[in-house]
Amino acid sequence: MGGQSDKWVLMVTAQTPTNIAVIKYWGKRDETLILPINDSISVTLDPDHLCTTTTVAVSPSFDQDRMWLNGKEISLLGGRFQSCLRELRSRASDFEDEKRGIKIKKADWEKLNLHIASYNNFPTAAGLASSAAGLACFVFALAKLMNLKEDHSQLSAIARQGSGSACRSLYGGFVKWIMGKEENGSDSIAVQLADEKHWDDLVIVIAVVSARQKETSSTSGMQDSCKTSMLIQHRAKEVVPKRVIQMEEAIEKRDFPSFARLACADSNQFHAVCLDTSPPIFYMNDTSHKIISCVEKWNRSEESPQVAYTFDAGPNAVMIARNRKTAALLLQRLLFHFPPHSDTDLNSYVIGDKSILQDVGVRDMKDVENLPAPPEIKDNIPAQKSKGEVSYFICTRPGRGPTVLSDSQALLNPETGLPK
Amino acid sequence: MGGQSDKWVLMVTAQTPTNIAVIKYWGKRDETLILPINDSISVTLDPDHLCTTTTVAVSPSFDQDRMWLNGKEISLLGGRFQSCLRELRSRASDFEDEKRGIKIKKADWEKLNLHIASYNNFPTAAGLASSAAGLACFVFALAKLMNLKEDHSQLSAIARQGSGSACRSLYGGFVKWIMGKEENGSDSIAVQLADEKHWDDLVIVIAVVSARQKETSSTSGMQDSCKTSMLIQHRAKEVVPKRVIQMEEAIEKRDFPSFARLACADSNQFHAVCLDTSPPIFYMNDTSHKIISCVEKWNRSEESPQVAYTFDAGPNAVMIARNRKTAALLLQRLLFHFPPHSDTDLNSYVIGDKSILQDVGVRDMKDVENLPAPPEIKDNIPAQKSKGEVSYFICTRPGRGPTVLSDSQALLNPETGLPK
Repeated sequence: MGGQSDKWVLMVTAQTPTNIAVIKYWGKRDETLILPINDSISVTLDPDHLCTTTTVAVSPSFDQDRMWLNGKEISLLGGRFQSCLRELRSRASDFEDEKRGIKIKKADWEKLNLHIASYNNFPTAAGLASSAAGLACFVFALAKLMNLKEDHSQLSAIARQGSGSACRSLYGGFVKWIMGKEENGSDSIAVQLADEKHWDDLVIVIAVVSARQKETSSTSGMQDSCKTSMLIQHRAKEVVPKRVIQMEEAIEKRDFPSFARLACADSNQFHAVCLDTSPPIFYMNDTSHKIISCVEKWNRSEESPQVAYTFDAGPNAVMIARNRKTAALLLQRLLFHFPPHSDTDLNSYVIGDKSILQDVGVRDMKDVENLPAPPEIKDNIPAQKSKGEVSYFICTRPGRGPTVLSDSQALLNPETGLPK
Repeated sequence: MGGQSDKWVLMVTAQTPTNIAVIKYWGKRDETLILPINDSISVTLDPDHLCTTTTVAVSPSFDQDRMWLNGKEISLLGGRFQSCLRELRSRASDFEDEKRGIKIKKADWEKLNLHIASYNNFPTAAGLASSAAGLACFVFALAKLMNLKEDHSQLSAIARQGSGSACRSLYGGFVKWIMGKEENGSDSIAVQLADEKHWDDLVIVIAVVSARQKETSSTSGMQDSCKTSMLIQHRAKEVVPKRVIQMEEAIEKRDFPSFARLACADSNQFHAVCLDTSPPIFYMNDTSHKIISCVEKWNRSEESPQVAYTFDAGPNAVMIARNRKTAALLLQRLLFHFPPHSDTDLNSYVIGDKSILQDVGVRDMKDVENLPAPPEIKDNIPAQKSKGEVSYFICTRPGRGPTVLSDSQALLNPETGLPK
């Protein structure tokens, strides 16, 4: 270790996407290694709209490990964080930068302290899988810094030990987390089924639902389900394996009707297992139910499904539309049923890829108020509007996997190793 | 048929209770005969607070079958009503009243027209199993009128063909509907497990929840579940049979903790199957969820369960408290979390057995406003009050089966056979 002086700071900055499962992970067979009871499949979301950026740095001048999340220093003591760190350090390689006079031997990595700064380009508390993206980014950036020879699948097994679904954020596009069979978890890894260009018609609209109640964490929720649900084993052993095969096929063939039916059924079944838990877990609320009813009614009025929906461990709806045209029709319906409070700016109510709004023909709040009722609700029931139940919408699409950013985009100062 | 004149009206008035399932019926193996895919167990509710009263009358002067529900004439064409009527007529016996000069031969029953008047002592639309009590009362009253020799179990098989859960309203106390094996449904009958005196500590509190959305009928809901849920068969074949045995034992031993655990788990699993249906069925809403959380939190803070909850095909909560003292503590909690709108009279907000209110020490709305937060929510979360989410509470208990009332309580005029 060392160089001409101990003043150097070596760092890597990376960006990692979030992902949304369309075949759900719920239940572990090993709590420490985070090994799941079934395979799962996810779609990676475009990091332009939802991602974590992380800078990891080492320097002989750092006297302890430190971490900042969204600019605020937080504790690095979490057991799962430490498991990942241990795994990474044990796989680190020699590093040399002759120009800067930096030389780090494999064994040195154990002694060097780390500075980590992480930033989400979306609200952390919104229930949008920030921990998955965060853990994946931490592992990916450190692997680059420490010069690991491991490929993405091997890195996914490390990220998995930090946060199960994080392993699926190591790839773009469509990703499968294979549950594996080994007791040590070595074969419980993520693999890419197809990249984001394979099916680039898809458009994703996320409704961030205003939640009032504190939610059960997914870690303790899935523990309770495994202990008490009489349905979870039947789901994991009999239902999911068939659905995984069908979903892989639907993705391969870009068969949207099958994709949508499987995604909706699997989301609902995951929430059914939560309800079958003692005490029961409710992640969806009345607003989530209304969004489902809206999509189901529309899908049924068309010849084949236009939109798939899926809900993670919270009330937010992630809707996947078959193409841009459908996404515009979806957004029209959503804005009709869930207008914002009157003092809300449309510009902050629909974020992400705002170009979809133009397709809807909506430029301001007045246009939202004048939206016509969708034709499928023309029957006797008066159209229900639920003002303020959705906090905002994010328009996005399937996206790329982790990338390394240039040092100019680092979150830490290259001289001091402290947040910029 | 006949007598000195054709002016006579022969009638019977009966009263039949509603029932609430604690092991749920969901799914038919035969739609026409109404044969279920699993056994179910129910508690009969005290008819003093929830019942149907029905007067059935025949007279040679009636020129057609007619029916009045809560004073309003309704159509009698429903296929299921007609199946019950056909079954009853085919089992009718000769009847003779020498004093009044009335003589009806078995074959005459086919030709005599019926007048039926039915009245619920609770709101029909409140989702409180009015059709179960109604069908059971119709069958029970007609069986008396037509002089059927069949016992209650055989009558239950007839009522079953009108509305599945109606068969369980033929008995008081604790009732099991045996699914049966025969194709013709002859062994799909209800039997009494214990009468209402067997376990008379129990107190029942029903929260009638204000519903906004139109609900899926249970008939079409269970059809959809049978067609699309991947979990319903596992529930019916693997889970329920064991629960039925355990529930029978809990009732026999008056083992409240087991009774409560089984009832809550089975209610939640029934709703889980609804959620696993395509499109998903939501019977519980956010208010139902809040009631469950309140009861679960309290049960967990005590050494063993104090209250069981169960929900049918709607948002109303039926809560069973282990005794009067517990029921008072329950009502205290419910009134704290779910106060009425300020203009509501307490007298119309808690109905049924109002004596529980005295045990709570609540005499008026001011007392409701001053209720202290329950000790189990003393933690950091601010106590949430949800005003107006409950329409009213009904306090009741397990109750007796059907009874014949005197002619003075008839709903039809004994001279004209028309509603009084």
